Amino acid sequence: MDTNATAETDFSTKGIYVTGDEYTRDTNYIETRITRDGEDGYPVEAGRYRLVVSRVCPWAHRSTIVRRLLGLEEVISIGVCGPTHDVRSWTFDLDEGGVDPVLGIERLQEAYFKRTPNYPRGITVPAVVDVPSGAVVTNNFPQITLDFSTEWSEFHREGAPDLYPEALREEMAPVMKRIFTEVNNGVYRCGFAGSQESYDAAYDRLFIALDWLEERLATQRFLMGNTITEADVRLFATLVRFDAVYHGHFKCNRNKLSEMPVLWAYARDLFQTPGFGDTVNFEQIKKHYYVVHEDLNPTQIIPKGPDTSGWTTAHGRESFGGNPFGNGTAPTRPVDA
Amino acid sequence: MDTNATAETDFSTKGIYVTGDEYTRDTNYIETRITRDGEDGYPVEAGRYRLVVSRVCPWAHRSTIVRRLLGLEEVISIGVCGPTHDVRSWTFDLDEGGVDPVLGIERLQEAYFKRTPNYPRGITVPAVVDVPSGAVVTNNFPQITLDFSTEWSEFHREGAPDLYPEALREEMAPVMKRIFTEVNNGVYRCGFAGSQESYDAAYDRLFIALDWLEERLATQRFLMGNTITEADVRLFATLVRFDAVYHGHFKCNRNKLSEMPVLWAYARDLFQTPGFGDTVNFEQIKKHYYVVHEDLNPTQIIPKGPDTSGWTTAHGRESFGGNPFGNGTAPTRPVDA
Repeated sequence: MDTNATAETDFSTKGIYVTGDEYTRDTNYIETRITRDGEDGYPVEAGRYRLVVSRVCPWAHRSTIVRRLLGLEEVISIGVCGPTHDVRSWTFDLDEGGVDPVLGIERLQEAYFKRTPNYPRGITVPAVVDVPSGAVVTNNFPQITLDFSTEWSEFHREGAPDLYPEALREEMAPVMKRIFTEVNNGVYRCGFAGSQESYDAAYDRLFIALDWLEERLATQRFLMGNTITEADVRLFATLVRFDAVYHGHFKCNRNKLSEMPVLWAYARDLFQTPGFGDTVNFEQIKKHYYVVHEDLNPTQIIPKGPDTSGWTTAHGRESFGGNPFGNGTAPTRPVDA
Repeated sequence: MDTNATAETDFSTKGIYVTGDEYTRDTNYIETRITRDGEDGYPVEAGRYRLVVSRVCPWAHRSTIVRRLLGLEEVISIGVCGPTHDVRSWTFDLDEGGVDPVLGIERLQEAYFKRTPNYPRGITVPAVVDVPSGAVVTNNFPQITLDFSTEWSEFHREGAPDLYPEALREEMAPVMKRIFTEVNNGVYRCGFAGSQESYDAAYDRLFIALDWLEERLATQRFLMGNTITEADVRLFATLVRFDAVYHGHFKCNRNKLSEMPVLWAYARDLFQTPGFGDTVNFEQIKKHYYVVHEDLNPTQIIPKGPDTSGWTTAHGRESFGGNPFGNGTAPTRPVDA
């Protein structure tokens, strides 16, 4: 979930609340689900829905990785907003004429308004839009990817991995929760801290979690063992942005990711796996954070660094063995977003 | 030279001019010299002058290193301003009552005004003040350290190194010039760039120079050979601030210093040499840049990182041989600033 800024820079409409001087994310989303039984009115159906993302947003990034790993490209189309947004909404400024070719809209906000006139919360990505009505079905990012894994299984490609195995779900829950609160959200807690004290506390909290991950991943190839799961997808979206953005812009600077040998090798292993690195655009990512957060970077100058060539270097994680895709295989389609 | 901010944040009174959108440093200083022959009215004399610095400023840092390497502590006293300054001047806020115990002033500006009423340029450190009159003699930082080496030689400690050897001066000049324009000043050119284009150009220029230094120092222990000179002092003052400040705050982020193996080992070699690391205060340095430059860091939050423990790790540069102090010896006095 990354949201539009508002003219007033009112964090509450950016999906962010400030409690005292500590940053708190608004976690109220449109919780309608697209399911096999269609109990919320939106049944799984090939070609009916459009996933709207931006390549810059870590919360949206998850959905593009999972869609690709599962091979859902032909049944769920994708609309890609540009790296920056205006005060009202993410926009389709990368598309010809600034209009999404399927939804026929310039601003994602229009699809939210079709769902709820004057929708009062953040206009966030990812959002899944019902193409016939043009209305947002859901922007509930943690559920979107889980539903891709569980509700859309009849449409998975041959060889799609099981990213959310039933036997592991109980064990995955606390890991994913800690990754969400301490890492995915932890970097934002540093960057948007309202005082030195809350920043200092946020920084300590973040690096405690990264040290835990450094230790956990020292003895196994992926977070849950020898196979990639949803938990790895969620962690990757933050790690891949760490040195490019969070280290400097959000002051998460005890060290770079590239200075944590285990996590850096783990992140490169994923980066070099089809579905991960091929969905990353460092230039767009940097442009988003450094241009949109004028309150942190008033000059809006975008750093030229860091050198990202290290991402493609040997990582040595194969020595753990393991099957990244379990009994499945890597995606082979060209990436579309 | 690092200067006070002004209420108007007028860069011209901070010793900084902006030409177009490229940052340019005001290099007009008070060029009066303290010499053996006293030709400018200020003869070398033990106990007469007070060196006013701040531990945060790289231009002042040179003078504290050279004073210590040469053992001039007993003949030139030191006054240390705090890490931040108000809109008018560097202040003696670290001293009891906020007053320099020798000069009896709260603001360095007062010593400038005693020299020139309504002195119109930046109130910069380092400044050498004539204690009897209370007036600034000079703030011409490149000359101050050279004069410590050449004009004050009768007061040098036993075993003081020759930081500015006559036989090397011709060779040192272009090296020190390139270090000044491309590195010492190069980091500021990145940080204070007024546009993306001038930042991009400044970044390229800086890293071309750092790559040159990485290559030059791959085959010799110090910049001019096997012995420390003034050129090393000048380079060190920027390198020691690089990861703590320039990398993030000034967006000099192709890589950290610690990611350039040769320069990082070279910098640690100097850091671990008496006179260098013992004059560094990372906390004050970070506080200065992140609090004073509100235009770059409006939150004024100071990063907790980076981890600086690496500075004291083995550097391996002894394998080049070399005598850091030539025929001399390391300083042994406790550091006083």
